[in-house]
Amino acid sequence: MLINTPETVVADALRGMAGAHPELAVDVENRLVVRRDAPVAGKVALLSGGGSGHEPLHAGFVGPGMLAAACAGEVFTSPVPDQMVRAAAAVDGGAGVLFVVKNYTGDVLNFEMAAELAEEDGVRVEQVLVNDDVAVTDSLFTAGRRGTGATLFVEKIAGAAAEEDAPLDRVAAVARQVNASSRSFGVALAAVTTPAKGSPTFDLPPDELELGIGIHGEPGRERRPMMTSREIADVAVGAVLDDLRPDGPVLVLVNGMGATPLLELYGFGAEVHRVLSERGVAVARTLVGNYVTSLDMAGCSVTLCQADEELLRLWDAPVETPALRWGR
Amino acid sequence: MLINTPETVVADALRGMAGAHPELAVDVENRLVVRRDAPVAGKVALLSGGGSGHEPLHAGFVGPGMLAAACAGEVFTSPVPDQMVRAAAAVDGGAGVLFVVKNYTGDVLNFEMAAELAEEDGVRVEQVLVNDDVAVTDSLFTAGRRGTGATLFVEKIAGAAAEEDAPLDRVAAVARQVNASSRSFGVALAAVTTPAKGSPTFDLPPDELELGIGIHGEPGRERRPMMTSREIADVAVGAVLDDLRPDGPVLVLVNGMGATPLLELYGFGAEVHRVLSERGVAVARTLVGNYVTSLDMAGCSVTLCQADEELLRLWDAPVETPALRWGR
Repeated sequence: MLINTPETVVADALRGMAGAHPELAVDVENRLVVRRDAPVAGKVALLSGGGSGHEPLHAGFVGPGMLAAACAGEVFTSPVPDQMVRAAAAVDGGAGVLFVVKNYTGDVLNFEMAAELAEEDGVRVEQVLVNDDVAVTDSLFTAGRRGTGATLFVEKIAGAAAEEDAPLDRVAAVARQVNASSRSFGVALAAVTTPAKGSPTFDLPPDELELGIGIHGEPGRERRPMMTSREIADVAVGAVLDDLRPDGPVLVLVNGMGATPLLELYGFGAEVHRVLSERGVAVARTLVGNYVTSLDMAGCSVTLCQADEELLRLWDAPVETPALRWGR
Repeated sequence: MLINTPETVVADALRGMAGAHPELAVDVENRLVVRRDAPVAGKVALLSGGGSGHEPLHAGFVGPGMLAAACAGEVFTSPVPDQMVRAAAAVDGGAGVLFVVKNYTGDVLNFEMAAELAEEDGVRVEQVLVNDDVAVTDSLFTAGRRGTGATLFVEKIAGAAAEEDAPLDRVAAVARQVNASSRSFGVALAAVTTPAKGSPTFDLPPDELELGIGIHGEPGRERRPMMTSREIADVAVGAVLDDLRPDGPVLVLVNGMGATPLLELYGFGAEVHRVLSERGVAVARTLVGNYVTSLDMAGCSVTLCQADEELLRLWDAPVETPALRWGR
């Protein structure tokens, strides 16, 4: 691993973000990454965070058109309420704050406590829970479905609504619509190694894969002998469509877990498009890359979001963050 | 590996690029990725290419402000002259074409032959050779220094000059200045596995690293027991500064080889900045991410480019490609 010590991994990364991104305000001690122009008067602020190890999620999504701030926890461990309260105070421009919370027990409890504390401080808070992973209900760390790739869609699309001065209830409603319209399914081809453990956190032989993996190496639906990209797309997209059944065009995220080459991800993207075409699902936009990762895990996930014209317009709206950036 | 067959990896990836990037024209049969608005009348066109397996380099850098076209070879194998001649004809808007060639024997020979053929067809061609890797002179596949991370700087900065309607000799001069002002050094923490071989192409135990690695797993300077991020930055930046000796601010690329988590790359970036500060070198801009990769190899490289005001202005100019994208 390219680290100094397991204990300093998160702080070291935040120092690196500070050096590479002068357009962001990085508080290494409190583990916050904040838009430098925050608070923006009159605009709703999106705040997210979670365990580290999923980069660029969330700090890489801080900037105009997406998150106002991100709180970084230890690797695969929720940040604490104090970080969230501090961040909420830093970004509230008077229009309130939307917490974007991935559905893991620690995150849910800590964001809930932070919402209560922030409201006591006079900050209006709404929360949206992201729970898009169709692979399993209830898992290590989770009651209900896990939150994975849809987090990117929620943060981008609701962030665009906030940038357009939509009020808090509207931004929260958009975020909930995006989550309700999104489903994901992930596959691991090799296990993840955390800095603290220093060896793979689960055992996955090179000639097997795990279907329905979580982003912390949580178990999925089943082990199988290695499959082709084509076969994996059939299973992953099939699992998503069994649950989503879109009646309009979808946004597609073809996401790498961290160690799978972009060459392979694009090839997998072609197979995802093939399955969607065979199933009569129209594709509006496709994003291919490592966005919601699990350190050095090899594998991929597919997230689909059924997007009406308004969600698509908000998806296309300008965004300026380290990891997602475009204008129109 | 997330593939169908080793034989179809490159074609599958190009089909995926076609699906994800309707703003690009992808010719899967001839393995070309071209700006959809090519040829652009009166503008010099940058053309590059090389073996696949280094994504997003080069196809991910095709678009306004950077490359006009990229030719994809088999994994770690040069594209053929016919591809380059075809691409040159597709992108020449009458102002000529600049070939950006990484210094590997096969690439150099094939681009040289393509330049002669294209010129016979009436296309004016200039070439720039990228040879920034200070680790070794002469290596597997190379006479002289290898071309690595500086390719990104050359393509971005010369691409901006071309976008501003600079003539061919000026665009070529800018490209050569960028290469002459850039140096790189890379480190492998785990070996690369190619689809054709299906197992690691060299043997690197988990408790060792290879200093001065190439982007095809070519041998570097030496094996050492595993080092910390801090120690690796001392060696890598030290090796670059032994050769470059900048007397002004530098652009910094902290590049991942493919399988190293972004969390770790940012931490390494902090150590790179520390060494530069200790050595009195000012940092103008920093880019952190997986840009010039080696499939699933774990590790990183550092590239520095001494940038005068004009190069910095061109670096900051708008660019709109799959992998690098910003406006001003």
